[in-house]
This record gives sequence, C-alpha cells and structure tokens, in this order.
Amino acid sequence: MFKNFISKIQKHQKVAVFSHVRPDGDCLGSQVALSLWLQKNGIDTTAFNEDSIPQNMEWLLNFFPIIKPAKNHLTDFDAFVVVDGNALHRFGETAEYLSELGKPIYMIDHHPDPDNIFEEFVSEVSASSTCELVHKLYSEHDPDQIDEHAAKAMYLGLVTDTGSFQFDSVKPGTLSAGADLLKRGGFTPNVITEKIYSSRPLKQLKLLSMALETIELHVDGQISTITITEEMFEQTGTSNEDTEGFVQYPLSIEGVKACVLFREDGDRVKLSLRSQSNIDVNKWARRFNGGGHKKAAGAWHAGPVKKAMEEVISVGQEQL
Amino acid sequence: MFKNFISKIQKHQKVAVFSHVRPDGDCLGSQVALSLWLQKNGIDTTAFNEDSIPQNMEWLLNFFPIIKPAKNHLTDFDAFVVVDGNALHRFGETAEYLSELGKPIYMIDHHPDPDNIFEEFVSEVSASSTCELVHKLYSEHDPDQIDEHAAKAMYLGLVTDTGSFQFDSVKPGTLSAGADLLKRGGFTPNVITEKIYSSRPLKQLKLLSMALETIELHVDGQISTITITEEMFEQTGTSNEDTEGFVQYPLSIEGVKACVLFREDGDRVKLSLRSQSNIDVNKWARRFNGGGHKKAAGAWHAGPVKKAMEEVISVGQEQL
Repeated sequence: MFKNFISKIQKHQKVAVFSHVRPDGDCLGSQVALSLWLQKNGIDTTAFNEDSIPQNMEWLLNFFPIIKPAKNHLTDFDAFVVVDGNALHRFGETAEYLSELGKPIYMIDHHPDPDNIFEEFVSEVSASSTCELVHKLYSEHDPDQIDEHAAKAMYLGLVTDTGSFQFDSVKPGTLSAGADLLKRGGFTPNVITEKIYSSRPLKQLKLLSMALETIELHVDGQISTITITEEMFEQTGTSNEDTEGFVQYPLSIEGVKACVLFREDGDRVKLSLRSQSNIDVNKWARRFNGGGHKKAAGAWHAGPVKKAMEEVISVGQEQL
Repeated sequence: MFKNFISKIQKHQKVAVFSHVRPDGDCLGSQVALSLWLQKNGIDTTAFNEDSIPQNMEWLLNFFPIIKPAKNHLTDFDAFVVVDGNALHRFGETAEYLSELGKPIYMIDHHPDPDNIFEEFVSEVSASSTCELVHKLYSEHDPDQIDEHAAKAMYLGLVTDTGSFQFDSVKPGTLSAGADLLKRGGFTPNVITEKIYSSRPLKQLKLLSMALETIELHVDGQISTITITEEMFEQTGTSNEDTEGFVQYPLSIEGVKACVLFREDGDRVKLSLRSQSNIDVNKWARRFNGGGHKKAAGAWHAGPVKKAMEEVISVGQEQL
C-alpha cells in the first residue's frame, strides 16, 4: 500500500510534517513516528503543530520536537505531509496556505472523504488509527527501523484512538500491530497508559462528581443525559478540556442505547451525542445542524439547557 | 507446556471444572473456554461455581452452563480441574472436599505459590491472565478448535484481567493472543467491552459521584485517599459490589504515587491500597495485618475512618 508513497517521498531533501489542530494522541503519535522514519531515511524533517501539546503527551516531544509553524518557515521545504486528517483546514491557518506554495503534499489518514489535493496519499478508513497506518509504513519498508521511541509514539495512537482497544475499529491487525510495537519497543503498556490516563488534575474529578449528579434517564431508560454548567466550571476552576471522557458515563448505564452531554457555553449549549446501539447519532445531530459519525456526533443548540434537553430528547425518541 | 496436561486429562471420561468464589471475568472465561475444549475432545464436562455469576457476564452461560456444586455431585467425576486459583479454599466449601475424594485434580492458573496437591498443573505467573494460558492450551493442541464461543470467553478474561490491556502484565504475546481470538471468533472487541463496561446501574454512578467528593491529597499530593461510608450506600441503595473500580480515580491524579480507599463496614474499615510507583503497597498493607501484591493490596482497620486515615497515611509516608 505504501510503495508509491515511500518511493516518492524519499526523493525529497527537506520535509515538514503537520498534525491537526487541537492535537490528540493519534495525530501526535503518527507525526512523531513518521518524522523519526523520515529522519532515519536521510530526510531533513521538521514537525509542526499550531496548538499546544496536551500536558499528558508532552513526553513525546523528547522523541521529536513539534514546533509552531510560521508562514515564512514553509518556503524552505520541498514537500509537506499531513497526518490524521485529510483536508488542509484541519491543520490550522498556516497549513491552509500549503497548496499555494505549489510543493507536493502527502497525506496519511483514516478518515473518510479526502480532499483531492495530494501528490500521493494513504487513506484507509478501516484502520483503527493513523498510527496503525504508520506502523504499516515501517513494516512494509523496514520493520527494523522501529526503535523504542517510534514504537511508543505509535502505541500512543493505537491506545488513544481505540479507547484502549475497546472500540469496533479494533481488528486482529490492530492488536498484532500493538504486539509488534511492545516487542520492538521493549516496553509494557502501563508505561504509556499511566502517562495518558493517570495525570488528571484533582479539580477534574470534582467536576466529574458534580456532572455525575446530573445524570438522568429518559424514554424508559433508553436515552440518558448529563449536564455541565458554567457554574460548575467556575466552582471547580475547570474548563471545557476537563470534560474529556465524561460522555462515556451516561452511556455506560444498563439499558441505555444513546446519550447526550449538554454543556453550557455562554447563551448556547454544546451537544455531544453517543450511541452504543443502532441509533444513528449522526442523523440525530444533523437535525440540530451538527453531525459526525454513527456512534459519535456533535451539534449546538440555542439554549437554555432545559429547552435543549426537551427538544433533543424529543428528536432522539423518533429513532428508537 | 501443556503436553503432559493434555495427554493426562484426555484419559478421563467425566471431568468437573471449578472457577473460584466471587467469580471474575478471567476465571469464568477460562472455565467456559476450558469446558468447551474438554467437550470438543470427547470428555463429559460440568462447570461449577458456588457463587452467582455477575450480571454483566451472564451471557457466558449461553456458551456453557455453570451450576452450583453439591457434595453428592462430586463422586460422579473421574477428575477435577480448578482454574484461575491454585489453592482449593479459593473454590468454595464444596471444592475444599475434592482432595478427600482421592481423584486427580488439575490446575491452570497465573498466581504465585501453588498448593502441592495437583496431578498435573500449568502455573505461569508471568501470564496476563488464566485465559491467556487456556489460549495456549488450544494453540498447542489444535488452534482450529477455537470457535466463536471459546474465543469470546477467553477474550473476556484477557480484557478484564488487564484493565483492557493497560497493565504491566500485558506482553506482546497477550496482544497476539487477543488478535488470534478476534480473528478466529470473528468479532470486534466492543461486543465484549460494551457488555462488561456498559451495564452499570444508575445508582452506582450516584455513589461514584459522592465518593469522588471525598478525594483528598496528602503528603504533598503523593498519596491520595477516597472514602465510602455506610451512609452513602444507604442513600444510593448500593452495596460493596458497586465500588468496583473506584480506587482507580484517586490513583489517576497527577503526581499521586499511591492511594488508599477507605470503606466503612460496621465498626471496621476496609482498606484497598494501590500504587503506580515504587511504593510497595503489599509491605504497607502488612503493617495492618493485610497483604497482596506490590501494586495492589488490602487490609482492615479497627476504625473509625478518621483514625484509620491518620494511621494509614502515617505508615505510607515512611515509604516515600
């Protein structure tokens, strides 16, 4: 799959790799692992991200630095690679100018519907993560180039994009890739998972405590809701980033088919919808001008929360 | 490793398989998978457990029934197998009489220091789970005997005994076994993980909400505590089983090296200790006549909670 990609990209001398804005473990892991691969294969490589790196993933920067891009940086490069996203606007303001430079742009990603601007790309929607695809790149070229740093970076993406190997995106090949990374990297998963999942600020658990109190069941317990108000953020000194993973709690209740997280944001209310059944939350979110995937989607409501809840539950009920 | 085990056990006509009291995913998964293996290889097999099967694992019983044993049942069998435990007292009152019957007893387990009573046994402490060992049994004998039911049963044990592949017990072979089970069983992990992790009663989340409120940091944030009182159980209509996993929350706070869960039980206080550092909670728990492993241990304190907390923190502080 990577034959053309590898042969073409190896002809460049100086390559920049971009990961998407609001970076997660999969985009950063694949960016670092791919940058290490390019470097190992004689290519002068720089890694860019417009945003800050989440604190629990800062250790990745010891393997390969990721810096903020500026427009005047970009003219130096022969080629660009974007990972874990397939449209330039996902990579920030600077990256949006890449196509104007007339240099080849490459892409490795697992999301649907890629833009039609790439010199060469790997787009495999069935892959659990972009890191699984970068592992394939190493495997097809020279698996012995997977050292400890590259292995840990790729493992990060496998773990974070699959909810620790729990999602339906996990195939035998995903676990085999994980096994290969543990073996070549010489580490056990706790080295990664403790960094990722064990560095919560105490205030986040106080916010979780308050949010769990708001959980309600609707429509005979088939739909559940959880609410986070601005007052909760104020009382606990937390912000939106601290709500990561909260939506899983109402979804974990017995008998619940789908859930909605309501988060106050000024006058408006952010909706996060999740399903673990045949309810298509993408369709549901579209009724509120949002969208996403079948099992995870988002939208906005004009508010207030009480009204949002009534209207959202009412639309969800139609799908049961 | 299984050569002698397989050749000896295949000579029996009627075999009973026991899983340990207060059963978990690994003992039930290995019991069902091993029972299916015995049955496939022409042995009349019965599976026993003295306790009830947790609700979120009842689906296993569709693959192979597990019934409560009675002493008069036992005389019928030629041989017995115990899984996921290596001492008869772990398998309940009926099982404690097995050695008196003078029939051969077999064992497959991954805990240290097995009893010296077994005809033949597999004891591999480095295995992530007993299910990983049962997968080896299938693999060494005839991997094609792994059908969908056996695969799902073994996958349950892999997932539950490793915190969804997050612990340091996970080795490349653990993930390879998982990959083989997904492939042969033709399923994706969410089929198992949604059953296991998505069937919480709402009241358990209300209890979690209350418990999270009690989290405190001690000794410059290196030790954290969480407390569950009898009043919380009463207010939420919950019981001890609903606290499963709660101890992970104080441990997940940034900078925390070890944590203690205090649970009121009459006059006394149950202590659950966890570490994610070099702090040895087994040593710590022994100071209160308890014990366990380096990273997970338990003990009892005479109470009340306030006094328990002072004394337990004070002992823990010595280890920092």
